[in-house]
Amino acid sequence: MKQVNVQVAIIGGGTAGLAAYRAAKHKTDSVLLIEGGKFGTTCARVGCMPSKLLIAAAEAAHSAAHTEPFGVFVDGNVRIDGKKVMQRVRDERDRFVGFVVEAVDEIDIEDKLIGKATFISEAQLQIDDHTIVNAERIVIATGSRPSYPPVWNDLGDKLVVNDDVFDWLDLPKSVAVFGPGVIGLELGQSLHRLGVEVLMFGMGGQVGPFTDPEVMAYAEKTFSDEFYLDADANVKNIERKGNSVEITYIDKQGIEQIKDVEYLLAATGRRPNIDHLGLDNIPLKSDYRGVPIADPYTMQTSVPSIFIAGDASNQIPLLHEAADQGKIAGSNAGVYPNIRVGLRRSSIAAVFTDPQLAMVGLSHKQVSEKFGGCGCFETGNVSFENQGRSRVMLKNKGLLNLYGEQGTGRFLGAEIVGPQAEHLAHLLAWAHQNRMTISQMLEMPFYHPVIEEGVRTALRDLNAKLKLGSVMISECMECGPGC
Amino acid sequence: MKQVNVQVAIIGGGTAGLAAYRAAKHKTDSVLLIEGGKFGTTCARVGCMPSKLLIAAAEAAHSAAHTEPFGVFVDGNVRIDGKKVMQRVRDERDRFVGFVVEAVDEIDIEDKLIGKATFISEAQLQIDDHTIVNAERIVIATGSRPSYPPVWNDLGDKLVVNDDVFDWLDLPKSVAVFGPGVIGLELGQSLHRLGVEVLMFGMGGQVGPFTDPEVMAYAEKTFSDEFYLDADANVKNIERKGNSVEITYIDKQGIEQIKDVEYLLAATGRRPNIDHLGLDNIPLKSDYRGVPIADPYTMQTSVPSIFIAGDASNQIPLLHEAADQGKIAGSNAGVYPNIRVGLRRSSIAAVFTDPQLAMVGLSHKQVSEKFGGCGCFETGNVSFENQGRSRVMLKNKGLLNLYGEQGTGRFLGAEIVGPQAEHLAHLLAWAHQNRMTISQMLEMPFYHPVIEEGVRTALRDLNAKLKLGSVMISECMECGPGC
Repeated sequence: MKQVNVQVAIIGGGTAGLAAYRAAKHKTDSVLLIEGGKFGTTCARVGCMPSKLLIAAAEAAHSAAHTEPFGVFVDGNVRIDGKKVMQRVRDERDRFVGFVVEAVDEIDIEDKLIGKATFISEAQLQIDDHTIVNAERIVIATGSRPSYPPVWNDLGDKLVVNDDVFDWLDLPKSVAVFGPGVIGLELGQSLHRLGVEVLMFGMGGQVGPFTDPEVMAYAEKTFSDEFYLDADANVKNIERKGNSVEITYIDKQGIEQIKDVEYLLAATGRRPNIDHLGLDNIPLKSDYRGVPIADPYTMQTSVPSIFIAGDASNQIPLLHEAADQGKIAGSNAGVYPNIRVGLRRSSIAAVFTDPQLAMVGLSHKQVSEKFGGCGCFETGNVSFENQGRSRVMLKNKGLLNLYGEQGTGRFLGAEIVGPQAEHLAHLLAWAHQNRMTISQMLEMPFYHPVIEEGVRTALRDLNAKLKLGSVMISECMECGPGC
Repeated sequence: MKQVNVQVAIIGGGTAGLAAYRAAKHKTDSVLLIEGGKFGTTCARVGCMPSKLLIAAAEAAHSAAHTEPFGVFVDGNVRIDGKKVMQRVRDERDRFVGFVVEAVDEIDIEDKLIGKATFISEAQLQIDDHTIVNAERIVIATGSRPSYPPVWNDLGDKLVVNDDVFDWLDLPKSVAVFGPGVIGLELGQSLHRLGVEVLMFGMGGQVGPFTDPEVMAYAEKTFSDEFYLDADANVKNIERKGNSVEITYIDKQGIEQIKDVEYLLAATGRRPNIDHLGLDNIPLKSDYRGVPIADPYTMQTSVPSIFIAGDASNQIPLLHEAADQGKIAGSNAGVYPNIRVGLRRSSIAAVFTDPQLAMVGLSHKQVSEKFGGCGCFETGNVSFENQGRSRVMLKNKGLLNLYGEQGTGRFLGAEIVGPQAEHLAHLLAWAHQNRMTISQMLEMPFYHPVIEEGVRTALRDLNAKLKLGSVMISECMECGPGC
């Protein structure tokens, strides 16, 4: 076998791996990027981008079908051409993947190696059966893959995961989505709005990313009003019957139903790709799921010369976090042993459903754990149902809960279901990272009429509850109607 | 005539006047709110709210007519029912006005007086011919009205202003809009998208609120691609002919055209309502247009006991500014002579066209005046044409210019034409008021894939130009495709 000696080896050429490669190269010339399959990121291939493309089509169909309240009428059908919908999703997806591949092509060929890496020792990797890489420092950036009960494999090609959806040549007639989490909700609602019959089943009542029971209940109600969603489902049997999947379940009225669907879409979570790396050969400390434990500020594992980044770390499986983690891991691998903490930002997450969902800063669960025991936090809220601008656009569905600390008045976090929540989340996440107080946030400019005025209402409510501001005025007319 | 003695009299019961009333009442019980006509705000009656309602209908029609690229087809016509469009605009407008009127109804009847106020002296107002108000302090909050060349009055009922549009029972066939400013663009584009033939004429090339020539040129090109817009028009003659208006103009190809339209919509600006107040009777210093000069931090005029707020002050004719000014003026009138400066926020303005327009902080003109002489500022920019998320949604039109100070790296301001600019403007305005540097802004969280990533690209460009960051990477793949 060929032998290669490098200072830094990076396993995985996705978002985290590419960021690690770039950061390591700033520190040393001797960097090797090892990719087991095809280059390209989860985000571009099967994640953020293609899902947003499907959502854009769903939004177009939904809007065209809901013009009447505005005095605009579609005389005829809104016809969804599944082949064309999927054509655009795939074409644009391929274009985005193309950019990633182009960027990889620009990397010096000497710095790239194709093959599956396994650890022989802390400083030695075997790549397939062709190369031994001796690396002083190693970054694990192997990403994640969908995870589901193995028994579902009996469904054969009737079982799909998000990856498969974006390769469809046409839209199916019906899909049972298991898992009303971020991926399940985005895909499930989009498919429903594109005319696919959707049944969505969850376990234990969890809907979306929420930890705040009020916000989660609002989201569940909203989505349940649009398509069949049982967040705490009682599914008796799942079985392949010819070309379809037969699902036997007790519906929300307690009645047994037997339903045939074209596909079962497993959106039951993702697992880090760390099970075929030969981690048993090195003394790496792992959590109960076998995921290496790493310091989130340095990305260093218990083996000081080994770093981990991105979905493989199972910390926060989001693109922007993977990029930050990759940068920190690569940079530290480059300068090891003189490692440094890297920039970790305030937490932000958004789900591009309609209404959108978002989480900022500390979740309700985290706030409760940290500040709940002493009664040291308060929750301010606003409903978007009567919020001026939201109502103008007929997007007046949603609930925002904001958390603030007693005494300091500091903004702690937020959970949101509502219109344009992705934008509200940025405003709030920047305020959170700037360690602003609720009073300071109320001093910031708010235009009129905007959905951000809903945030202001919640801030005023919170400030009053923190006894830092006056009691809410029910109809606050000096700031304009309905805000 | 009846005589009334009060500590504070407020002339005008709109947004500024209501805010002033509320603020003054916190300081003294003796406050009188004088309204010349009907209560209700410009914003609710003829401004922000009804225009957003018209825009919502236009957006519904436009979206329904542009679904094909997504693989969604409308089999049949997108039919605009002008009567129903205007019905919703009026009904919802009336609802918003209703809230304002309700809020006014809750004000103690003893605190309200109906009639037109004129100054007899610095401390005395005559209300119509029924009351003399002796007021120790007075707040002028009389608002503004549309302004246009008086000769257009010859057009009779074929001349309309924004107020009239929102009372229409049906949509007209054609409208010539004079003035491609904020109001002209919002109404003109909406009417165009609702099937009204629109011709738009400007003077001197000004389009929207912009001072940055690049951003203005982009906006002009974008709107000109959609409907006839000549921002520097050569209009030879305007004449009423029977039931229409005949406009003779030299078109952009230099050819004389004669065109009949149903209405001429004057969107040529607004003027403060200060010409019938008897200001000649008091020694108030005014600018060359006759508008009383006031300190923007205290809203005090040259007569110490007289304050001014809202559109009447001609400072920044925006609802949220009127509310702030009203609060400051009312509070200071309440505590006079112990006046205080009030909170003035970083500047923000948004225009709800498609793409949207926005201004934040200092304008390009202000930045050039303040920092241009020494070459002390740089401009970072981004085009939204290839921005990932914008392209996914087929909203990939726009340009953002950001200004930053050399040396300090401080964010100075921005001019934007682009998708969701209202939300980008809030993020940037908060950053501006927080006196953030470009480097600090780049440390903030950005989700993926979002339009805010376009802002990040411009920030990176600016930071590199300020020599505070590394040169831009052309395809920055660690942060995801197309961002």
